[in-house]
Amino acid sequence: MDALPLYRQLATHYRHAIAAGTLLPGDRLPSVRVLMERHRVSLSTALQACREMEAQGLVEARPRSGYFVRVPRRPTTPIEEPSAGLPDPAQYVGIHARISAIIARGLRHADAVNFAGACAPAELYPVDALRQAASRALRRHPTLLASSVEPEGHPALRAALARHALQARMALSPEQIVITHGCTEALNLALRAVAGPGDVIAVESPTYYGLLQILESLGMRALEVPTSPQTGISLEALELAAQTYDNIRAVVAVPNLQNPQGSIMPDANKARLVQWCETRGIALIEDDCFSALAEVDTPLAAAKAWDRSGNVIHCGSLHKILAPGMRLGWITAGRWQQRVEMLKFSQSRPNELLSQIAAADVMASGNFERHLRRLRQKLRDQREWAARTIATMFPAGTRLSSPRGGMHLWVELPGRLSSEAVFDEALRAGIRVMPGVVFSNSSRFDHCIRINTGAPRSAALEQAFARLAVVVNRLADR
Amino acid sequence: MDALPLYRQLATHYRHAIAAGTLLPGDRLPSVRVLMERHRVSLSTALQACREMEAQGLVEARPRSGYFVRVPRRPTTPIEEPSAGLPDPAQYVGIHARISAIIARGLRHADAVNFAGACAPAELYPVDALRQAASRALRRHPTLLASSVEPEGHPALRAALARHALQARMALSPEQIVITHGCTEALNLALRAVAGPGDVIAVESPTYYGLLQILESLGMRALEVPTSPQTGISLEALELAAQTYDNIRAVVAVPNLQNPQGSIMPDANKARLVQWCETRGIALIEDDCFSALAEVDTPLAAAKAWDRSGNVIHCGSLHKILAPGMRLGWITAGRWQQRVEMLKFSQSRPNELLSQIAAADVMASGNFERHLRRLRQKLRDQREWAARTIATMFPAGTRLSSPRGGMHLWVELPGRLSSEAVFDEALRAGIRVMPGVVFSNSSRFDHCIRINTGAPRSAALEQAFARLAVVVNRLADR
Repeated sequence: MDALPLYRQLATHYRHAIAAGTLLPGDRLPSVRVLMERHRVSLSTALQACREMEAQGLVEARPRSGYFVRVPRRPTTPIEEPSAGLPDPAQYVGIHARISAIIARGLRHADAVNFAGACAPAELYPVDALRQAASRALRRHPTLLASSVEPEGHPALRAALARHALQARMALSPEQIVITHGCTEALNLALRAVAGPGDVIAVESPTYYGLLQILESLGMRALEVPTSPQTGISLEALELAAQTYDNIRAVVAVPNLQNPQGSIMPDANKARLVQWCETRGIALIEDDCFSALAEVDTPLAAAKAWDRSGNVIHCGSLHKILAPGMRLGWITAGRWQQRVEMLKFSQSRPNELLSQIAAADVMASGNFERHLRRLRQKLRDQREWAARTIATMFPAGTRLSSPRGGMHLWVELPGRLSSEAVFDEALRAGIRVMPGVVFSNSSRFDHCIRINTGAPRSAALEQAFARLAVVVNRLADR
Repeated sequence: MDALPLYRQLATHYRHAIAAGTLLPGDRLPSVRVLMERHRVSLSTALQACREMEAQGLVEARPRSGYFVRVPRRPTTPIEEPSAGLPDPAQYVGIHARISAIIARGLRHADAVNFAGACAPAELYPVDALRQAASRALRRHPTLLASSVEPEGHPALRAALARHALQARMALSPEQIVITHGCTEALNLALRAVAGPGDVIAVESPTYYGLLQILESLGMRALEVPTSPQTGISLEALELAAQTYDNIRAVVAVPNLQNPQGSIMPDANKARLVQWCETRGIALIEDDCFSALAEVDTPLAAAKAWDRSGNVIHCGSLHKILAPGMRLGWITAGRWQQRVEMLKFSQSRPNELLSQIAAADVMASGNFERHLRRLRQKLRDQREWAARTIATMFPAGTRLSSPRGGMHLWVELPGRLSSEAVFDEALRAGIRVMPGVVFSNSSRFDHCIRINTGAPRSAALEQAFARLAVVVNRLADR
């Protein structure tokens, strides 16, 4: 028999039931009387078991109602700073397949609650303004869909983006902006402009999986540089990288609201990064999709704002901030401008006009800034609520990022919990998350998951978090 | 003084005036009386001069009206079959820049009559049906522009394209079709799937300049294979190529209505080409944008129809046949399907939905086939008229392609007339053509131009042809 005292055996029994999801958060624990009868234990043993579970944070006592499941502990610890040291620039053979497999597995569960995306649901965007603008464009330009398009993008959208860039302290003329199929195409063009197969590209670690896919598909090699959850890519590690590898052709960084950690580089770091790349003759590619979502008093500056020599290529997108259903990105490529224009023309020709005209229309109205203010406020509420919920429900030792904006939380699970196991189990429970394995070619983030917090609070969402917590707790418990 | 007899001097004087555009086709030549007075010549000399010009085909006599300019001769000679022999696979350093420079020069003359494009004007497409379909999509899917998009393309469009493919004798499931940003992106994906930098790709010669741009931008090397204006790429030359170069990774061909020559491969050749590529382990990439414009009783089969092993990648587009203002292409990639899906995701993510839904809507209605029938008829009338006009107005020795469909004429100018000179001079006269220099890396087609015949007949268009003829005649006359 078991060497544990009886009350502990009883507590363990119910801990397992909670971990297995048999008892969900909010469920009432059997009453002391039921416990006594069901398990043939004394009143004192039943009470002791309940108090043991309460001490473990598994349940909470509510006066005159009994004990209720409240999945244990409140792990509000922030993500740790990374250790120094550089991994080898990997060949990334297979990461493409790995990411694709994960995305495909996710898509087979189309009805799952989606914590894996990079956008908020449609209701958080100016749906009516966008639709009306598109209808208006169709009325005003009746032959739009049947007329060929001249290169580089629609003048009105390029002008609107140039105005928008002023907030990030970039002084651009509309002619310096090329419209692309999302930021993904912009990054492809930027990398193809400055580097070729076999070249080493320094990237943040962890980094956006899409970037790793692009690098692998272009035959380039990613060198992962430790990146602080607070201040972004480590300049010291970059210097070390340049001393170690002499064939680094570019740095790709997300200075504002890094994906997945949400870090924001201080302006001083941005200036140093731009200067350092310039001095070293290494191109800086800035991926800047989330800036407008930062909850700050003064809009964040782009690193490009410190560029004096055209060494910084800036890539942006309206996808996360205005219209997830339009594929509107943009690129301004400094001294590679002409080459990028050529590559864009040769890769996919100019974007079609309807979305561009509609987006320019919305951006030129007061709707855009008003929408952004509302979006930031909503995302903040949702993210903070999600963080509290995760902190409450997830096992002890869980660490959380605390970004100042956006719609991602980066969650470090305790122990060596496999994020791919969490991914698979969660899918079975009807929930999609983005597992840490895809944010690096190393195994360094295998125990992390990225959670999208774009969806508004609801009872169903709380239930989904509870189901996810059950999965995580069960796996942590093994 | 001149050794020529006086009547010949007089005839030469007026030939130059006609070549210089001082006298335009249809203009009345000064009367015999005026010639006598103005040039102080005898009646017999004036009459002899007129008859000399008539014999040269420069003017025609109309009873009781006098002589009228009818720019000389009727050069209806077809384009000659190419000679055998292969050029070296070139590195194409600079063709990108050359093509871009030409396109940029063309764009600086936005008001020029455009014979350089690859589409017809909007009025030849189902403008109203497209606009109504787009408006309907916005009404039926109110959150469309703000909702993220799942990969590979909209099911309704993929289904419509699979049905459309049946006409070309391809049996595809919708799942085998990936929607792309035009055929340009499809070709990029196909090439990236099967080959890498440094690999040799066999292409038609002359070939579509966009393909040469793509190859250069991907660091691949184009091997130009002689291509018949009647039957397409030469299989004998391909065999010779494979014996000479052992690193050919793919053949890119346009079996139906080749660009620019308009040739159509006989079915037997298509079958042999597919078989040959299969046996040699060389991928076949089929660029199939114009098939639906062929003026034939039975729809043309795609080469892909003979593919039994997945060795043929088929790329198509709705851009030329349905909606030049939408960037809707598609690819079905045989045994490279998964790799192409990965590359598409990594290069530009899925296309936005609005155009896809609208196009699927039009394709599912009777509008599509009705539109295609009308389009073919109009293009035929316009092309034949343009061919007659060119034959009448251009200098002796001009040769013309005679495609069985589409909206291009390939014009071989006499002598070693430089197409770039024609391009520049024509721009100054307010006319854009596509010069032969961009259709090959060699100088073999420097004396050719491609003329778009998509625009409906009009007095203005006839005037534009006349102005172009003046440019060509003047240059030929030097």
